[in-house]
Amino acid sequence: MLLEAIDHRPEPPFAWPVELEELRVRIRVKKGERIQCRVVYGDRYDPGEDRAERSLERVAADERFDWYEGSIPLPTRRVRYVFRLEGEGSTLWYGEKGISPERRQAGVFQFPYIHEEEVLRVPDWARDAVVYQIFPERFAKGDPDRDPEGVLPWSADARPQPDSFYGGDLRGIIDRMPYLAELGVNLLYLTPVFTSPSNHKYDIDDYYRIDPHFGDVEICREMVETAHRHGIRVLFDAVFNHCGAGFFAFRDVREKGEASPYQDWFRIKDFPVVMEPEPNYETFANHIPRMPKLMTHRAEVRDYFLEVAQYWIREVGIDGWRLDVANEVDPEFWRAFRRRVKSACPEALIVGEIWHDAGPWLRGDRFDSVMNYPFREAVLSFFATGELDAEGFDARLSAARMAVPEPATFAMFNLLGSHDTERFLTLCQGDRRRLRLALLFQMTYLGIPMLYYGDEIGMEGGADPDCRRPMIWEEEKQDRELLAFVQRLTAIRREVAPLRRGDYRTWSADGEKGLYAYLRRHGGESVGVVLNNSHGWQEWVLDASAWEEGSILIDALTGNRFPVHKGVVTLSLEGMEGVILVEPS
Amino acid sequence: MLLEAIDHRPEPPFAWPVELEELRVRIRVKKGERIQCRVVYGDRYDPGEDRAERSLERVAADERFDWYEGSIPLPTRRVRYVFRLEGEGSTLWYGEKGISPERRQAGVFQFPYIHEEEVLRVPDWARDAVVYQIFPERFAKGDPDRDPEGVLPWSADARPQPDSFYGGDLRGIIDRMPYLAELGVNLLYLTPVFTSPSNHKYDIDDYYRIDPHFGDVEICREMVETAHRHGIRVLFDAVFNHCGAGFFAFRDVREKGEASPYQDWFRIKDFPVVMEPEPNYETFANHIPRMPKLMTHRAEVRDYFLEVAQYWIREVGIDGWRLDVANEVDPEFWRAFRRRVKSACPEALIVGEIWHDAGPWLRGDRFDSVMNYPFREAVLSFFATGELDAEGFDARLSAARMAVPEPATFAMFNLLGSHDTERFLTLCQGDRRRLRLALLFQMTYLGIPMLYYGDEIGMEGGADPDCRRPMIWEEEKQDRELLAFVQRLTAIRREVAPLRRGDYRTWSADGEKGLYAYLRRHGGESVGVVLNNSHGWQEWVLDASAWEEGSILIDALTGNRFPVHKGVVTLSLEGMEGVILVEPS
Repeated sequence: MLLEAIDHRPEPPFAWPVELEELRVRIRVKKGERIQCRVVYGDRYDPGEDRAERSLERVAADERFDWYEGSIPLPTRRVRYVFRLEGEGSTLWYGEKGISPERRQAGVFQFPYIHEEEVLRVPDWARDAVVYQIFPERFAKGDPDRDPEGVLPWSADARPQPDSFYGGDLRGIIDRMPYLAELGVNLLYLTPVFTSPSNHKYDIDDYYRIDPHFGDVEICREMVETAHRHGIRVLFDAVFNHCGAGFFAFRDVREKGEASPYQDWFRIKDFPVVMEPEPNYETFANHIPRMPKLMTHRAEVRDYFLEVAQYWIREVGIDGWRLDVANEVDPEFWRAFRRRVKSACPEALIVGEIWHDAGPWLRGDRFDSVMNYPFREAVLSFFATGELDAEGFDARLSAARMAVPEPATFAMFNLLGSHDTERFLTLCQGDRRRLRLALLFQMTYLGIPMLYYGDEIGMEGGADPDCRRPMIWEEEKQDRELLAFVQRLTAIRREVAPLRRGDYRTWSADGEKGLYAYLRRHGGESVGVVLNNSHGWQEWVLDASAWEEGSILIDALTGNRFPVHKGVVTLSLEGMEGVILVEPS
Repeated sequence: MLLEAIDHRPEPPFAWPVELEELRVRIRVKKGERIQCRVVYGDRYDPGEDRAERSLERVAADERFDWYEGSIPLPTRRVRYVFRLEGEGSTLWYGEKGISPERRQAGVFQFPYIHEEEVLRVPDWARDAVVYQIFPERFAKGDPDRDPEGVLPWSADARPQPDSFYGGDLRGIIDRMPYLAELGVNLLYLTPVFTSPSNHKYDIDDYYRIDPHFGDVEICREMVETAHRHGIRVLFDAVFNHCGAGFFAFRDVREKGEASPYQDWFRIKDFPVVMEPEPNYETFANHIPRMPKLMTHRAEVRDYFLEVAQYWIREVGIDGWRLDVANEVDPEFWRAFRRRVKSACPEALIVGEIWHDAGPWLRGDRFDSVMNYPFREAVLSFFATGELDAEGFDARLSAARMAVPEPATFAMFNLLGSHDTERFLTLCQGDRRRLRLALLFQMTYLGIPMLYYGDEIGMEGGADPDCRRPMIWEEEKQDRELLAFVQRLTAIRREVAPLRRGDYRTWSADGEKGLYAYLRRHGGESVGVVLNNSHGWQEWVLDASAWEEGSILIDALTGNRFPVHKGVVTLSLEGMEGVILVEPS
C-alpha cells in the first residue's frame, strides 16, 4: 500500500454525523489499491479494545485516490475509531498516531461528541427539487404600467446593454406559472426583487420593499402563493455582503459623516465619504462605489439583516434564500442566519453562491447547498469543449463529491449556466446535441438540476449582459423540441426515484470512445445511465451485476428494451445519445 | 514527485490568516522529495494571471511528509493562489482542480476573504509563560480552620484515596507564592475552586461561590492579587460540560420533575429523575450520577455559564480559563464563550482540555491553546520508555505542530503530567536523569512548559488518585537538586528569547545513538539544543551554518564553550545530558 496516499481526519469532509447517533467516515487510499477497508470503533469511555466494526465501501475514485466510506452507529455519540486496511498480504492499522502493522502504534481517531449543529440537516424536499432560475427583469412582463422609463421593446432580437430595462416583473412570473409547472420545475430561484436602481438589483436600496418596477408586497405574496398552488417553492436572493448606495444607513453616513450612528456598518477610510473618482470605503470587488461592503460581523448590522431574512419568510412565505457573494460574508453571520431562518421555517433551504470548493460552508452550521459552479465547469469541459475525457470528467465529479458531506451533494444546485455566465448552448457553438446530452446528464446526476431561464427553449447569449436577454415567448422562435426533451427529462426524474434519491456510483468510463456510464441506487432499485459523448455510433458491453440475470431494462427516454444476459447488458448508441435504463415496474 | 503525497486545502491547518492582510499557507509533499516550492498569488478580483510569488520554506518532516510553509501578503484580504513545485527536471502546478504541468489545468485555491474571527489571536504574553498546575486540595494548607471533617494528616507518606481530604486551601497558595516566583513560573492553573462535595471539585454545586474549605471570594481575590504582584497570572478551571448533583438547576429538576423550568438544561430520559441504581439522564462519561451533562447549546444554559465566566474575570481578576472536557461541549458555546471572555479581558487566555488532535478547536473562533497530551505521550515514549527513537520522536512532534496553525503552537500547554495521569518520574521508574532530560526538552521546546505541582521536587505517584498526593514541603524530603535544575531551566528560558519566541527547526536526529538536536531562531539569533538520550557518552559533529564561522557557542547550563569551526560544532555529551547552545551576548 502506498502510505503517502492514505488520509483521514476526524472532521468534514472525512467524517461527519449523519444523525446524532451515526458518524459517517471516509478514507482515501491510492487509486487502484486493492484493499479491504474496515473501521473498528467504540465509545470513547469504554475501557479495553474496541470490537465493533463495519466494512467500508469504495464510493468514488478521483485522479489520484480511491475513496471508501462507511458508517459508525453509536448511541452515546462519543466515537473513537481506527481503520484496518487489508492489502495483498499485509494488514495496516491507521489512527491519529499514524499507520502501523501494530494496532496500538496507530492510536485512534476521536470524534469526541456529536453535536446538533454538526449534523447537516438538509430539507428532505430538496432531494426532489428541480430549480429554475429567473432574472425577473427579463423573464416575463405582466404589468406594462410598472415599466421603468426608457424601457426597450421585448423581442427575441434584443441585445441587452448593462443598463437596459425591458420591463419584466412579478405579475409576469405569476402569469407564466403554468408554463413553469408544465416544464416540470418545482423550485424558483429569483435574483433580487428589492428596490434598487439597476436591472439586476444586486445594489439594494431598500431590503423591505419590492422594487416598484417589479410589483409590491401584495403581488409578491400572490406570486409565492400561486407558485405554491402549482407545487413550486420560491427562493429569494439575499444580498448581504454589500448594499446599494441609496441604502438608508449608507446615505446617513454620507450625509452626517462621523456623526452618523451607522459609520460602523461600513469600512470607511476617512471622512467625508466620497464615491468618486475613487470610493474611500470598502466595496464589493474592486472599487464599485454603488456597492459598499457591509460589516456583517457587527451586532447591529447582523441583527438588521437577520430581521430582513425572517421578514420575507413570514411576510410572503418564501421557502429559503440564495446567498449572494456568500464566501465573503463572515462565518458567524451565516451561523446566526441559519439559526434564524430555520427557526422561522424549519423546511427553508439555504444556498450559498460559492464558485470554488465550498466544503467549509457545508458542515451543518451554515449552508445546505451552493451554486455548483465546479459542476458546470466539469460538464462544459466534457460535453461542450471536450477538454476532459470520460475518465477525467468522472475524476473531477468524484473529487467534488468527496469534498463535501453527502447530504450536501443531494442539494447542490447543479447548473449549466446562470446570469453570471455565458449560456451553455453558446459555449457549444449552438450545437444542440451537446446541450441535450449535458441536460440528460444534469437531470440524472446527484443533486438538484438548475435550469437558467430560456436554456430550455434554446436561448443563446454571451457573457453578462448578453446572457440576460428577454425570455422568448413567441413559440415559433422557441426550440419546442428541446423544450419537450427537457419536459421529458423532468418527468423521468419525477417518476424514477433513484434519480432523485439514489446514491451515485461510476459504472464505467471509456475515454477513447467517449462513453460514460453510472448507476443510481435507491431502495433496492438500480438505474443505469449511459452516455455516448462522441459523434459516432458506439457499441458497449457493460457489467450488469446490479440487476438480476434475465431482467429486461427499459430506456426511460425511448422505451427501448435491453436484456441482462450472461451478466452483461449490451448497448448500441448513436453519437451524442444517451439512455436511462430502468427496471420495468 | 509522488503526486499522491501532495496535499493542501484552503483552510486550517493548511491555510490560516496571521493577520487580516496576511495568509499563511502550508503544503505537504513526500518526505525527502527534493523540490523548490513557491506560491503564486493575487487578488481574487484582479483579472489576468497572477505574478506575485513567494518562496516556501521547509519547516518540518513527519513520518511520511515534508511540510513547506510561506506567507501571502494581500491588503484586499481576498486571496487566490496556486503552488509551483519544481523537482528534478519537472515543474508542476497545484491548485483546486489538481496537479498539472499546465498552470491553467491546475486551477487556483481560493481563500475568499479574511475575517477577524478566523485570525487566531493568542495573547502575546503566552509566549513567555511557564505554567504551574495546582490541585488546591493538595498543594498547601494555609488555614487549618477551613479543614473539612475527617481531614487526613499532611505527610510525605500520604497515599490518597478517591475520597480523601488533606485540607489544602487558597491561603496555602498565597503563602507559597514566593516559592512559585522563585521557581520561575508566571502562570498558575488551578483545578476547580468552586463549591463541590469532592476533593477534585469537578462536580460543582455552586459556580458563584469559592468552596468554603478553600476560602471565600475575598481570599480568592487576595490570592490573585498576590500572584499578580509576583508577576504571576492565574487561570481557573471551567467545568461547563457537566455540573454537580447539588447544582440549583439539577436540584430543581429532581424536585419538580417536568414542572421544573430547568428540565431543558439536562437530557432527561423520563421523570421522575433518579440517580440510582442507573441515572435516567445523560451524564459525563458513562453513568456518573453526580455529574449531569449540561445542554450548553440551549440559550438559557449558555447565558448562565457565560455570565459565570465573565463574573470571575471581573470579580477577582483571573487571567483566563482552562476548559474541562472541552471537546464534548458544543462549538457554538465555545465561540460565544470566546467573544464574552475576550471582551471582558482581551488578554485572557483560553486553554481547552483535549487529549487528541485539537486542530478544529484552534482556528481563531474557539481556543488559544489546549492541554498538550500528545506532547506528553511523545516525550514519554522517547525519554521515559524508549518506545520512540529520535527520528520517530521528531516525526511525532512535527505532525502535531503541522496539525494546528502556528500561533497555537506557541501557547500549547506542554505537560509531562497532570492530575489525570501518572507522574512522569514514576513512569521513568524513578530514574531522575530521564526526568531531567525531559524537563530540559520541555523548557526549550515551542510552547508553554507546564509543571504539575511537585514534579519539580521529585514527587512520585501512580494513576489518579495517587498522583494527587499532598505536596511535600519538608525540604529534607524534597529533591533540592532537581528543584535547582528546574529553577535554572526557567531562568534560562526567561533570559534566552529564542527559547520562548523563536521558531522551531529540527537540527538533527540520530536514532541509533539516541541523539536529538533542534534550533530555535528569533530576531537573527539562533539557539541550538542537543540532547543525548542514551546512557553512554557520545560525540556528535553538527552542521553549524546557523552561526558565523569562528563564533564561540556557550552552553547556558554549564558555561562550557563550543567553537564553530569549519562550519561545524563538535559536541561531547555524557549519557542523558543535554546542552543549550547560545551565542555570547
